[in-house]
Amino acid sequence: MREWVIGGAQMGAIQKSDRRETVVVRMIALLDQAAEQGCDLVVYPELALTTFFPRWYMEDQTEVDTWFEREMPNAATRPLFDRACEHGIAISFGYAELTPGGRHFNTSILTNRQGEIVGKYRKIHLPGHVEYDTERDFQHLEKRYFEPGDLGFETFDNENTLMGMCICNDRRWPETWRVMGLQGVELVLLGYNTPAVNAQNSDEGMEKRLYHSELSITSGAYQNATWAVAVAKAGVEDGFPLMGGTVIVDPNGFVVARAKGEGDELIVARCDMDLCQFGKKTIFDFARHRRIEHYGRITSQTGVER
Amino acid sequence: MREWVIGGAQMGAIQKSDRRETVVVRMIALLDQAAEQGCDLVVYPELALTTFFPRWYMEDQTEVDTWFEREMPNAATRPLFDRACEHGIAISFGYAELTPGGRHFNTSILTNRQGEIVGKYRKIHLPGHVEYDTERDFQHLEKRYFEPGDLGFETFDNENTLMGMCICNDRRWPETWRVMGLQGVELVLLGYNTPAVNAQNSDEGMEKRLYHSELSITSGAYQNATWAVAVAKAGVEDGFPLMGGTVIVDPNGFVVARAKGEGDELIVARCDMDLCQFGKKTIFDFARHRRIEHYGRITSQTGVER
Repeated sequence: MREWVIGGAQMGAIQKSDRRETVVVRMIALLDQAAEQGCDLVVYPELALTTFFPRWYMEDQTEVDTWFEREMPNAATRPLFDRACEHGIAISFGYAELTPGGRHFNTSILTNRQGEIVGKYRKIHLPGHVEYDTERDFQHLEKRYFEPGDLGFETFDNENTLMGMCICNDRRWPETWRVMGLQGVELVLLGYNTPAVNAQNSDEGMEKRLYHSELSITSGAYQNATWAVAVAKAGVEDGFPLMGGTVIVDPNGFVVARAKGEGDELIVARCDMDLCQFGKKTIFDFARHRRIEHYGRITSQTGVER
Repeated sequence: MREWVIGGAQMGAIQKSDRRETVVVRMIALLDQAAEQGCDLVVYPELALTTFFPRWYMEDQTEVDTWFEREMPNAATRPLFDRACEHGIAISFGYAELTPGGRHFNTSILTNRQGEIVGKYRKIHLPGHVEYDTERDFQHLEKRYFEPGDLGFETFDNENTLMGMCICNDRRWPETWRVMGLQGVELVLLGYNTPAVNAQNSDEGMEKRLYHSELSITSGAYQNATWAVAVAKAGVEDGFPLMGGTVIVDPNGFVVARAKGEGDELIVARCDMDLCQFGKKTIFDFARHRRIEHYGRITSQTGVER
């Protein structure tokens, strides 16, 4: 399938006390809306099933593990998979993954339109910090609760369209987009939970944060000639505001659909995958234009070196 | 010096018949304006001394070589260097370079405030094509007349500020910015000659082209927490329109100055290099956040591979 009607299913706040079953009811309501609008694929946010728990400092690993899923689908999410299959809609959403071996990842999955998981991604660029940080206005403990993803930036053939995933902070790193672009990606799916204020700079409010997010997504899409769907969890979670700004971006880097509010909200666009071809064959024909002999630092060094 | 008053010296059209001496007079006029406004550094466009000659198909190498400079400074440009030195203004501009060994590059140089060349860059990402292309609305023969730069993306300490250069199409490639970012660059200088219409897609006019240019520059600046000065040659050269859009961009990716027209025009901004520190120490602290083990494709393959 080369033309997909895609829904970006922005979700409003999920409070700490909300149960997964309640959240899944909201996700299904968005899915039903998407079905009415003829969607073939619906994308939900990062850590879609719970509040953004990395803002809470926890020392008890048993408590931490209550935020994680041990299998997918599981009892709480099975109704979502079933409904998606009934509608013939592929879905992608994020959740905290605890593996049988006891490893913790910030994960997203992608299904086909039959409700079968055809792709999995584990977040590579974990933002934030490991220990309680008194300098911050609020905590962002992803580096404490997750280990960096071990699956790379894979792409997945989903009914003849090449799809890739990344999560939240990954979108700010051009390496994320390029590694998928070098596989010929046509559609990048990503969810995010982005605080509406910078915890380390209260002067950086929502307007600037939205700009930075959209800048990262539109440039990544343009420079790799790929569609991108970027979906927010928004609203105020237990007193902490998250920004919205869900967008669908075309392979020329133009926003074609954008959420208006900060609650549960579906945005929809018809996305022709063949529109990726012009960029991939002209200005971003990598084989003709890239000069890898001058890129060595990108993979040979992690931090700044003079 | 950590606070630079920087001038972006956009230049209007240069016709095929214009002599370098005439162009240098215009460059000096912009320099004098910059001096009045207290500038410490002035940046001019790519191939600043001549029309954008790669739009012309030539088979006679002797004719091609008339567009190249055999030394820098030379007789035509010496007055510009002298005036810059008098004013105590550092300059950067682009020109076609023919080396003593007969090699051809699309080059830019950077001087200190004493008029001495302290940095040289040779364009790496050459756009366009080698042979006459009947499919295009007009020609873009950079791959015919130049070889790819052999100096990498170096950075240069200019009075305690780390400066780098790139040229035109380089700005669209995130690798350009990242390789300099990995050296800790604080100020990226670049000039461009960008046709106002896509030669391979007449539907892509000036508005979209300006958006793509600014998207590339602002994302590169933001994602590497660096200042950027991007300077156009604009206006209609022998019937072929070039876009303007000269900008100065801060290390948060915000445009702080932008040209209004398509003629010779100076834009000025006061640029505090210490503003780069916040981004470099937080969200784009490469040492803490980059995961080079997942970036392998960026340097191991040139084109798309599944």
